Amino acid sequence: MESRVVGVLGAGQLGRMFVEAASRLNVQVRLLDVGPSAPAKQISFVPAADGTTSEHVDGAFTDGEKIKELAKKVDVLTIEIEHVNASQLQTVLDEGIVKEVHPLPSTIALIQDKYAQKKHLVAQGLPVADFVAVGGESLQGTSASAQIEGVAAAGKQFGFPLMLKSRTQAYDGKGNFVVKEAGNAEEGVKALGNGSRGLYAEKWAPFVKEVAVMVVRSSTGEVRAYPAVETIHRDNICHTVTAPIRTSDPRIPQQAREIAERAVATFGGAGVFGVELFLMADGQLLINEIAPRPHNSGHYTIEAAETSQYENHLRAILGLPLGSTALKVPSTAMVNILGLSDLDTDKDAIVKTMAPAVASLAVPGATVHLYGKVGCRKGRKIGHITVVAQSDAELHQRMEPILHALETATEAARSGSQLPAELTLKGACQSEENRRQEYGSASTSSLSPLKPTPQSALDFKHPHPLVGIIMGSDSDLPVMLPAAQILKKFNVPFELTIVSAHRTPDRMREYSRSAPSRGLRAIIAGAGGAAHLPGMVAAQTPLPVIGVPVKGSVLDGVDSLHSIVQMPRGVPVASVAINNSTNAALLAIRILGAADPRYLGVMQQYMDEMEAEVMGKVEKLSEVGWDYVVKK
Amino acid sequence: MESRVVGVLGAGQLGRMFVEAASRLNVQVRLLDVGPSAPAKQISFVPAADGTTSEHVDGAFTDGEKIKELAKKVDVLTIEIEHVNASQLQTVLDEGIVKEVHPLPSTIALIQDKYAQKKHLVAQGLPVADFVAVGGESLQGTSASAQIEGVAAAGKQFGFPLMLKSRTQAYDGKGNFVVKEAGNAEEGVKALGNGSRGLYAEKWAPFVKEVAVMVVRSSTGEVRAYPAVETIHRDNICHTVTAPIRTSDPRIPQQAREIAERAVATFGGAGVFGVELFLMADGQLLINEIAPRPHNSGHYTIEAAETSQYENHLRAILGLPLGSTALKVPSTAMVNILGLSDLDTDKDAIVKTMAPAVASLAVPGATVHLYGKVGCRKGRKIGHITVVAQSDAELHQRMEPILHALETATEAARSGSQLPAELTLKGACQSEENRRQEYGSASTSSLSPLKPTPQSALDFKHPHPLVGIIMGSDSDLPVMLPAAQILKKFNVPFELTIVSAHRTPDRMREYSRSAPSRGLRAIIAGAGGAAHLPGMVAAQTPLPVIGVPVKGSVLDGVDSLHSIVQMPRGVPVASVAINNSTNAALLAIRILGAADPRYLGVMQQYMDEMEAEVMGKVEKLSEVGWDYVVKK
Repeated sequence: MESRVVGVLGAGQLGRMFVEAASRLNVQVRLLDVGPSAPAKQISFVPAADGTTSEHVDGAFTDGEKIKELAKKVDVLTIEIEHVNASQLQTVLDEGIVKEVHPLPSTIALIQDKYAQKKHLVAQGLPVADFVAVGGESLQGTSASAQIEGVAAAGKQFGFPLMLKSRTQAYDGKGNFVVKEAGNAEEGVKALGNGSRGLYAEKWAPFVKEVAVMVVRSSTGEVRAYPAVETIHRDNICHTVTAPIRTSDPRIPQQAREIAERAVATFGGAGVFGVELFLMADGQLLINEIAPRPHNSGHYTIEAAETSQYENHLRAILGLPLGSTALKVPSTAMVNILGLSDLDTDKDAIVKTMAPAVASLAVPGATVHLYGKVGCRKGRKIGHITVVAQSDAELHQRMEPILHALETATEAARSGSQLPAELTLKGACQSEENRRQEYGSASTSSLSPLKPTPQSALDFKHPHPLVGIIMGSDSDLPVMLPAAQILKKFNVPFELTIVSAHRTPDRMREYSRSAPSRGLRAIIAGAGGAAHLPGMVAAQTPLPVIGVPVKGSVLDGVDSLHSIVQMPRGVPVASVAINNSTNAALLAIRILGAADPRYLGVMQQYMDEMEAEVMGKVEKLSEVGWDYVVKK
Repeated sequence: MESRVVGVLGAGQLGRMFVEAASRLNVQVRLLDVGPSAPAKQISFVPAADGTTSEHVDGAFTDGEKIKELAKKVDVLTIEIEHVNASQLQTVLDEGIVKEVHPLPSTIALIQDKYAQKKHLVAQGLPVADFVAVGGESLQGTSASAQIEGVAAAGKQFGFPLMLKSRTQAYDGKGNFVVKEAGNAEEGVKALGNGSRGLYAEKWAPFVKEVAVMVVRSSTGEVRAYPAVETIHRDNICHTVTAPIRTSDPRIPQQAREIAERAVATFGGAGVFGVELFLMADGQLLINEIAPRPHNSGHYTIEAAETSQYENHLRAILGLPLGSTALKVPSTAMVNILGLSDLDTDKDAIVKTMAPAVASLAVPGATVHLYGKVGCRKGRKIGHITVVAQSDAELHQRMEPILHALETATEAARSGSQLPAELTLKGACQSEENRRQEYGSASTSSLSPLKPTPQSALDFKHPHPLVGIIMGSDSDLPVMLPAAQILKKFNVPFELTIVSAHRTPDRMREYSRSAPSRGLRAIIAGAGGAAHLPGMVAAQTPLPVIGVPVKGSVLDGVDSLHSIVQMPRGVPVASVAINNSTNAALLAIRILGAADPRYLGVMQQYMDEMEAEVMGKVEKLSEVGWDYVVKK
């Protein structure tokens, strides 16, 4: 389809996943990295003229001559890592050795210098934490003493703690130092090159969440953001990513995407960019930093998005139409696999490092990616696992055994203890029978197709609810409890709480508006008398709202029924029978069935069981005859 | 994670997609096929001892010596095509050269002989069309005259037309001949080897649909079926696959899976198997044939299932836990890309062949796979496109431009005419702006996030409805029409029809029971007076049913309201206000939002517009004052 050849500086895991996307479109790729077995080279064999050896280039992506050699073989150059020789990229472009470089070498250079990157973002009106150069504006640094003074000045300006950062060669937390108080300035400067590199200081940003957004940019400036995701870092390395992000304020995910799109629109050249942001307690979003390439926080897009970040990077740099950035599954997460030791020399550490991958083989919806890295060190990214699910609750259930394996193996590596057999490949295979019993085979169903949630009978607050049960007063609880019991019976994650239209109107507004962005899919609202709650909630959320009329001391609940059901055109409430919260929950489960057909399966089974129960009574009635009521 | 090395006989597209799955798990693969550039070899570079040349084997997968050479390099052998040298596979296994071969060589041999395969299935009690050997039981054939007599005898037994089939070397319709009447027997025998090959005759099977089920089998005999899919063949080659299959009879998909699992359970060895079936008019399912390997009808699993058929094949042959076979998206389809000419010599034909791939770049949810075949002939499979969607209706909208491109290009290749610019790569890129307007960018929304359906105002029968609107009588139509108008405004595919509980109880039963397997996600039922329809439908379907009480000539509709809403515990109906079918449709859209968050987005926008409309009236009222009602 496409005859142009793409060259990539770097052949690590990002290059490997990029090559995978390119192979699908039969686009030829030439790679520059050291050795014949770099991860990306393993999955791309391009025979040279002799038919057997490879056309890839062996060398460092910082080596100007090697970049030139690669440039001669290809039509378009791109990168999988930003710590490349940007000036040589500019040269091969200027000299016409290669037609295009994406993103532009000037963009790569700008992003390499994190201080210049921040200044650029500020100049473009984008939000970042306050920052200041430390010991002068020179990229090469000045002297340790000037920098120590600079830290002190920054401390006066921003207070302590503050974040001291190296301007260049910074990744996975390398190049950052937390200056806790004025007395730590010297230590920080020493840790970051002792005056030999340019530094800057950033005001401490006590974020509540870390957010990331991948954005693909075409060479004509079209930008398309992927969904905003939540990232969790450990020891400054990306640990897990979950998508989409859940927030109480429904505007935040969209705001994050807009900021990310605006930021990426300011850069030159095509490709995907990873935008990392901090979400502050007041809802403010600050850009932390930007990567001019596919990013760890976008790995999930391979399994979970309509077009992966890698294919979109390829499409962008080739000027092909950009692909859809929408999620194709409701919920997804990624967890990194890091080397637990120097794996070449420590066979036991290999087994332990692989424990989460082994555990994930028994997890539906989990996909393991191992990068085939040779010579792997402790803390190095050697693979990742993506999990997809039909809901957040299911996602977290699925992630649980994988994260448990990771913790267990990390602890075993630390203490030198042995790994449980089920976390080794041999043990995992032997336990297959157990796994079948646990998850059920594909062709059988049970009333609990989803693993039981950890929700106890008294626990009304599942961490990832799909259904909310609310009522105006605790006096409605006896009527509403059966709804909770039904949801529990069907293993539907729910929350149950009190929200009063008349006594807590602000809470009602907040509850209604945040429901979709918190992941709820339906709300059951019980109300008696004037019974405004269901309708007022429906007026403030696009979710389906099920109203349960609660029978009062007069009028038999007909007042509540009419108040709930007779909604004006435009705002629907789904009313069920008076006091019948059982049916409200059953209706909620049928609604969930629209999203997840497994719920339709268990609902059908429930209906079949009801039928069987009545048929049992039919039989008994015909046997027992006149005494039925007594003997029943 | 896994140190055993896998050898594959064949390195075509199936091998290529298998290698892709193996690379993700960092499992080493050695391939046997002719040349260094076979599709699978292109994405797997295994340096030999010299560090540059490859460890793959160059040769035919029917060549005994080459099989032996491959066997020496690996721990487990498998196949990507069944037309291999099965006896040599048995030999390398017997001689201990390789530890395992999957599936077992005996299974491969059994399946290679389609007559023996059918006899095996019958012996295992599995359903197949009636068949009989033609001209004796010899695999090598007898004489043309004996076979012609055999066809005549088969004709007497089964009638004409009948299907004459070669026992071996049959694929993509090669080896089949339709004997229309007794006089065609000689022609058929001549076409199929003229006595030199064993033949058999099959009773004509006038199927209504072709069904396929992929099944993965572990070496211990565990079987897991993927969903049943519908396949459409053209000129005996697989054209499109859609999953899951839609049927009026909700039992058929499950029956197909059970038959497929039972069939695959009878074979020895591990791996995935493709089971092709015919669905007959009376609902009977007959096995047509079985492939002992990943299959064209399972390509869709890469993008649409929790574990792809390729990864499950790998897991099965390595004895790893089998992966989930569940779909992760609601709806998916695959279309093959076949060479339109001998592509090495005809550059114009390459461009035309690529037209559907080019068209798919502009289609959200479409993924192109090009196999990198060298030396491609007309009619050969050179790639495929998988499309995923949140509903059948969206799927068919997305498929439409791809199928249109395919038709256009095929016609252009046939007539020698030129391809429209938008179906060439250059044209497609130029039309990007149009595409953006058509689909909207990721960060903007409109009331029509989904492309308008082809449904006209008067068309009450969308081919892939998500919502059904039913009513007991055409007299209810004026009350129910606003529901249809709302669904149309929101571009929700729906059907509208008459189903009467009291006058057409059988139709009501059929409608209710078939609704989920036809793809409906909600039913809106309007009823007046005794108003039994919503509740009686809810009693026979697990879908959410929304009841619209229709006001009659007496009692103001309160009779209908109470009849609809006061359902017994166990069977819920979602009631809306009397005569308010508008709200029923809005509720249905909120329910769809549980499955597809885009509907929540447009519902929120609708609510915002309502608010803005009222705010406009607020303003006008304050401007106009006392004359408002007159001037409004």
